[in-house]
Formats: sequence, C-alpha cells, structure tokens
Amino acid sequence: MAERGRGWARAVRGLLLDVSGVLYDSGAGGGVPIAGSAEAVRRIKASGLKLQLCTNETQATRENFVRKLRAMGFDISAAQVTAPAPAACRLLRERGLRPHLLVHDDLVPEFAEINKTNPNCVVLGDAAENFTYANLNEAFRLLIGMEKPVLISLGKGRYYKETDGLKLDVGAYMKALEYACDVQAEVVGKPAKTFFESALAELGVPPEQAIMIGDDIVNDVGGAQQCGMRALQVRTGKYRPSDENHPEVKPDAYVNNLAEAVDIILQEL
Amino acid sequence: MAERGRGWARAVRGLLLDVSGVLYDSGAGGGVPIAGSAEAVRRIKASGLKLQLCTNETQATRENFVRKLRAMGFDISAAQVTAPAPAACRLLRERGLRPHLLVHDDLVPEFAEINKTNPNCVVLGDAAENFTYANLNEAFRLLIGMEKPVLISLGKGRYYKETDGLKLDVGAYMKALEYACDVQAEVVGKPAKTFFESALAELGVPPEQAIMIGDDIVNDVGGAQQCGMRALQVRTGKYRPSDENHPEVKPDAYVNNLAEAVDIILQEL
Repeated sequence: MAERGRGWARAVRGLLLDVSGVLYDSGAGGGVPIAGSAEAVRRIKASGLKLQLCTNETQATRENFVRKLRAMGFDISAAQVTAPAPAACRLLRERGLRPHLLVHDDLVPEFAEINKTNPNCVVLGDAAENFTYANLNEAFRLLIGMEKPVLISLGKGRYYKETDGLKLDVGAYMKALEYACDVQAEVVGKPAKTFFESALAELGVPPEQAIMIGDDIVNDVGGAQQCGMRALQVRTGKYRPSDENHPEVKPDAYVNNLAEAVDIILQEL
Repeated sequence: MAERGRGWARAVRGLLLDVSGVLYDSGAGGGVPIAGSAEAVRRIKASGLKLQLCTNETQATRENFVRKLRAMGFDISAAQVTAPAPAACRLLRERGLRPHLLVHDDLVPEFAEINKTNPNCVVLGDAAENFTYANLNEAFRLLIGMEKPVLISLGKGRYYKETDGLKLDVGAYMKALEYACDVQAEVVGKPAKTFFESALAELGVPPEQAIMIGDDIVNDVGGAQQCGMRALQVRTGKYRPSDENHPEVKPDAYVNNLAEAVDIILQEL
C-alpha cells in the first residue's frame, strides 16, 4: 500500500488515542466533542482493531472521566483508559512513598487508599484552580524541607486548549518547582516510556503494530515514537501550524482530525 | 593584612549590599530588621566607605521601599538603591516595548510613564498574591500569541524567606512561562551583569575595590564575582548550610551577618 503514499497505515492491529484535543475539546461545562470523533471510535471498534485511550488527564478520576466521555457519545469503558493517577498509585506503593497532593479536587479520590500522613514526596497534577500562590508555596516548602526532595509529576505538558482558550499545563508548574528546589521531577504519564508500555500492554498489541494519535507533538508523537510506535498528529486541539517545524519530532503523518485518520487506516486493513 | 587571614577585606572603597535577608527579613507587616544591621549601615557611612543597596526587590516602588527601610532605622536615600523596575523601564523605552505587567500591585506606579496599550512583551516581577492561576494563564496567552515572545523577568531568584516561611520567587514563575512558551526570559536585576554594572556606576567605585554582601549564593555572590567584585555570603536570610557546598559558586568569605562583615572590613581600612 506504500505506493498509495499510506505506508504509515500498514499492518496495524491497535490504536492508542489521546483524548483531549482528539476526541473532544475540554473546557467549562465538560467540553465539546470534536466533529466526527464519536463516529470514528465506533468505526474503530466495528473494524476489529484494538483501542486504548492513553491520556494525561488528571482533572477527574478514571471513572468520572469515562462517564463524561460516554455522555458525549464515546463508547468507552474504564478498562480502555490508561491514565497517570493509577500509575502513580502503583509507584507510590512500590516505593513506600507518602504523597502531599497538589492536584485537582476531582482527582483526590484516586489516592483514597494511599497513606498521606507525614509526606515524603509531592505529587503534582493539573491542579487548575488549585494552582494558587499559597498551594504552590506549601508544596515548595515541603520539598525544600526534605533531605532529598521527591517530586512526582503527572505529565509534563506545556499547555492545553480549553473552549475558552489555552491554559498552562502541569509541566509549567513542574518546571517552577524543579527550579526552586533544584530537583528533577519523575514524570508519570506521557511521554514517559513506562507509561506508553503500560498502555501497550493494556492494548495487547506490540509497538510495531500500534499507532498513537494525538495533538501534542512532544508528549504524544515524540513519546510514542520513542517506544517504537508510529504516531500521527491531528490538526485539532492544541495543534499549531508551527508544530510542523518542530526541530526534533516529526510525526509519521499529519491528519486533519481523528475521523480522517480512521478513514485512511480502515482503507488499509 | 593577608597574614591575618582577611585578604578578602583589603583595599575596599565601597560596599554593595543586598537588602532582604541582609538588612531585614521581609514578611507580613513589612518585616523585621536583622539584629545589628542598622548599626552596621551607620558604621559604614561613618567610615567614609561608599554604600549602595543592590536589590531585586519588586514588591514596592523604590520610594516606598526606602520609606520602609527608614522606618526600620536604616539611614538610606532613594539614590542609594539600585532596583530592577527603573532598569526595566529604561530597557522598555530603548526598545519601544509595551509591557503587559504581571507584578505586585505596589510596583505598578514605577511603570506609570510607560505605554502599556497593545502589549508586545510581558514583564514579570515578584507578583506574590498576584501569581494566580488566572493571571499566569493571561500572561502565557499573550506570550504564546506573539510572533516572537518577549519575556522580561525582574530577577530570577528561586525563593526567599519571609517571617512566616520560604516563598517561591519570581524565577520559579519565569521558568514556568519559559517552558510553556519555549522562550528564554531576559533577566533585569541580579545576577545580570549589566545590573551589577549599573549598581557599581551608582556606587562610583570600580569592581576590584568593591565588595558585594548578600544571602543568595547564586544571584548575589555568583553574579557579583562574575563582574570582578569580591562577594560575601551572610548566614542570615535564606542562607542554608548546604549553600556552602554549592558546586559552582564559592564566596570570598562567609560571615555570620552584616555586622560581622562590617567589623572585619573596618578593621582593615
């Protein structure tokens, strides 16, 4: 099929999809679906391709996140979502870490089973309105008071698009705390290789037979390619034309939106 | 005098002093003087040594800052203070830049004469309570919307100490915006070489005859040494014992506080 210029779409058995900016644009009132994306998800499932959502969403528990997606018309189950908070909980348990949380209120229930007394690390998510001056100073003081500060960041995105405009993402606040404490955060979520590997394991498809589709040139496209997957950038969500001149990351292809990607991929099956 | 182990104190004609953490500890209600510092300033002036304060203070106009220092017993005039905001105004005028200000409310009058319509740069100071999620998003959106984002930061300190604890300084927020916009800020204030050179010009003493005294190992000590001055770190303010193992910066000497530094310097005159 390469002679038709679609070499990137060959021999696919599973798709990893970013969510915000690919399925819907987040924002006040829960956001709005991107035209054609719900239908595209239905077509993927009908085709027999495996499907897993791979998101850095940390503004809601996985259960509430799935509830929101279903209300927007996306036929998705919780098991089909790979998200940073459950991965962080595994890491905290493995290493006996007790977190101070600077996260969105709606994410807190994900950490219900984790011991949070006498914190010995800080977990940073996209806290949105909780990114106050007071909360940032509190997290900073805890870190700078530790003999060896441990900062765990749920993603390192620079910004994302909501319906009312671009917003600073968790990565910007991570950089602020890294600089203030002279420490390097451990990133759980995209683009961490272990996170993509978890998503692939849940997808049940090896990297060379999977395609990642996202709107973030670095965290979606670059991260997936580092794991040996092909990766597409959609021209929806936070996509900006200048992404196409990125000095380090080049997607296997650009598509206008998820629907177009699925059209092409299904033609090649 | 080197045989007495005070080689660093020889041939001095002028002193540059950092203010917060050297003269006083800032905090609620204006802060509290550090014991012996007001007397030390009087002794410097009585000795005939030249004196200039070199501060990254951006929470007040220079006039109000001096008023506060005088109320705490420091015999200082506005002309003896080198501060970032006046330096930034010169830079904005020279380059025809119209700033969006993300600064402390009390600093805004310093920019009264500057055209701020239709901003083509962002000026970031230690905005303290103005470092809200909404204000940071606003500054970010302006920057990311510029063809070539221009971010001017009044200092790049990591944190400072107030009477109620450590606080994130402007440098942390600078790093957040730098990362989000993929831009490098231009720093006005310590440790910028041009800023120290302005302070030395106002002091009227060449670098090899001046000593900088500060509590910040990088911005005070490192910055001054880069300009050919000697520099002392006081063990007051935000000083931490781990500063003495800094991998890159080594002060010419440590002193317990300003009073001790002045004792030694005056003995060597």
